[in-house]
Amino acid sequence: MPTQVIFLNGGSSSGKSGIVRCLQAVLPDPWLALGIDTFVDALPAALRESDAGFGVTEDGRVSVGDVFRTLEAAWMEGVAATVRAGARVVVDDVFLGGAASQQRWQKALGGLEVLWVGVRCAPEIAAGRELARGDRAVGMAVSQAEQVHRGVAYDVEIDTARTESLDCARTIAARVR
Amino acid sequence: MPTQVIFLNGGSSSGKSGIVRCLQAVLPDPWLALGIDTFVDALPAALRESDAGFGVTEDGRVSVGDVFRTLEAAWMEGVAATVRAGARVVVDDVFLGGAASQQRWQKALGGLEVLWVGVRCAPEIAAGRELARGDRAVGMAVSQAEQVHRGVAYDVEIDTARTESLDCARTIAARVR
Amino acid sequence: MPTQVIFLNGGSSSGKSGIVRCLQAVLPDPWLALGIDTFVDALPAALRESDAGFGVTEDGRVSVGDVFRTLEAAWMEGVAATVRAGARVVVDDVFLGGAASQQRWQKALGGLEVLWVGVRCAPEIAAGRELARGDRAVGMAVSQAEQVHRGVAYDVEIDTARTESLDCARTIAARVR
Amino acid sequence: MPTQVIFLNGGSSSGKSGIVRCLQAVLPDPWLALGIDTFVDALPAALRESDAGFGVTEDGRVSVGDVFRTLEAAWMEGVAATVRAGARVVVDDVFLGGAASQQRWQKALGGLEVLWVGVRCAPEIAAGRELARGDRAVGMAVSQAEQVHRGVAYDVEIDTARTESLDCARTIAARVR
Repeated sequence: MPTQVIFLNGGSSSGKSGIVRCLQAVLPDPWLALGIDTFVDALPAALRESDAGFGVTEDGRVSVGDVFRTLEAAWMEGVAATVRAGARVVVDDVFLGGAASQQRWQKALGGLEVLWVGVRCAPEIAAGRELARGDRAVGMAVSQAEQVHRGVAYDVEIDTARTESLDCARTIAARVR
Repeated sequence: MPTQVIFLNGGSSSGKSGIVRCLQAVLPDPWLALGIDTFVDALPAALRESDAGFGVTEDGRVSVGDVFRTLEAAWMEGVAATVRAGARVVVDDVFLGGAASQQRWQKALGGLEVLWVGVRCAPEIAAGRELARGDRAVGMAVSQAEQVHRGVAYDVEIDTARTESLDCARTIAARVR
Repeated sequence: MPTQVIFLNGGSSSGKSGIVRCLQAVLPDPWLALGIDTFVDALPAALRESDAGFGVTEDGRVSVGDVFRTLEAAWMEGVAATVRAGARVVVDDVFLGGAASQQRWQKALGGLEVLWVGVRCAPEIAAGRELARGDRAVGMAVSQAEQVHRGVAYDVEIDTARTESLDCARTIAARVR
Repeated sequence: MPTQVIFLNGGSSSGKSGIVRCLQAVLPDPWLALGIDTFVDALPAALRESDAGFGVTEDGRVSVGDVFRTLEAAWMEGVAATVRAGARVVVDDVFLGGAASQQRWQKALGGLEVLWVGVRCAPEIAAGRELARGDRAVGMAVSQAEQVHRGVAYDVEIDTARTESLDCARTIAARVR
């Protein structure tokens, strides 16, 4: 059965977005890209930096509230329905809850052919790339680098500290059926 | 039955995005915002300015290819599923096909409670706002201003040429159940 | 003597940027656009939300520190030198210090032919446009709407609450020699 | 005499912007960042994709017209004046004309203490990073990778293909007096 979803999980500044764009460029068919940033951009501005929505503490820890979780669950159903309606989709997310986050997605994507990809990057390198991006919030990269992979099962794992985005994308694409 | 979808249709530079953000600010419940820009950003870069994807001619006319249409149909199912899973969603689109575009969305959103909103703006005013945005592609505003409303049925119509985004949002919000 | 600088002063969300882009479109000669945003983008990320740099309080008041002021003074000399070297420049700023801010710029631009433009917008309308932009920091528009014009002398004043950006630009352009 | 300007030259997608932001983060004093993108953003929209302004051909070659050159010369004087007025500035540019481009800047920055930095990246790696950025115009990275360094003299050269932005910034910072 052909792969329907390529699912990338990795911490902030681990290099997911660059890999997603390279995947869209190297895969022979057109794939949509829907990720956590797409969802966050869809939220009301008032939910940013709020208890019900989400916030980032001074040391870069992200907290997520119940309104965020409720809307996110609906969003996940939407992504699954997009795939069931025939689009192939690259999804990227940051599994703040590790294995529990993956289970939520596995439930939403039930019955679909998913290629699970772990995007790893050594914390100190991700922290340097966070500086290079010029974001105001510094600290997320280190805080998330290992946390997001705890208990998560993958079909492929890549390490962006040593490999260019395009080469990572080619490694993943070779596993797509 | 409570309104589940607020659907805004209007030409480029008619002021939809500002109204969407004001709606998210004035509505008491949290609403997601998913629009044509969300979809276009999800497409592979190679589909921009391609026959299969979409392109903009020198006089601002937008052409859309069959790959675009296929992926868009799947995306529409995804938006509908997000709503069915419990999220209230503000959708905005540009009905290049007028009534035919609305029919595609009506089919996707079948059974849901939708408030259809026409966002009008006189072509010469939309053209001025296009200049003010500094986009490279000039001409879309005039080309689309009337075309997108042909044969489309609305519950509410607003004219952004004379009314601020926030006041438009309040008019719409008053119709939300 | 031909106008060398068009200088726009107005509060946040008063509509300066749109007018600047329309001016660049309607003026027959090419004009550069250099504004307070250009300067802020040039600052180190660490100066954002710092005492030495600048910050925004919860009610939208902007505070500016001594490092910001020192670098800004050098930047102002740079803008003046760009004009003296032959480029015509549209500058936009937010005169947090009212007349004192204008005096600093008058000193930097000494000997140059400047058209001073006041960009006014009723506080409640600017606040609505702030919501429509979706910025996180809400309150700047109201806080600055009147403060920035205190004691400032203009050659032209425009009111964006009642006039489209393009029409404002045409009014200003008619005064350019 | 203390370094007043750090000048980075490198092709498109060679990694200049990330290094600039890391430099601003690791250098103990505040440095402004003014680059070719700052200048291009200041140009009227009509000069993009025009003969007098600049354009990008289908294979990624950039052409620059006489209006662009005239305004750029004035902009260079402005950058130099910003430095003479006391700000330390990181400048980045793409020397499309190689040694001739450097000579124009040397003339503008006459008498100032400049650290010239060559930012190299193998063409095939820069091309991959161009894909990862998702830009529409593909080809600039390869076209410029070697061309921009022809005949240019440097104080430091770095290779971003093998070194993270933060480490490149530290190498450069170690040479700043």
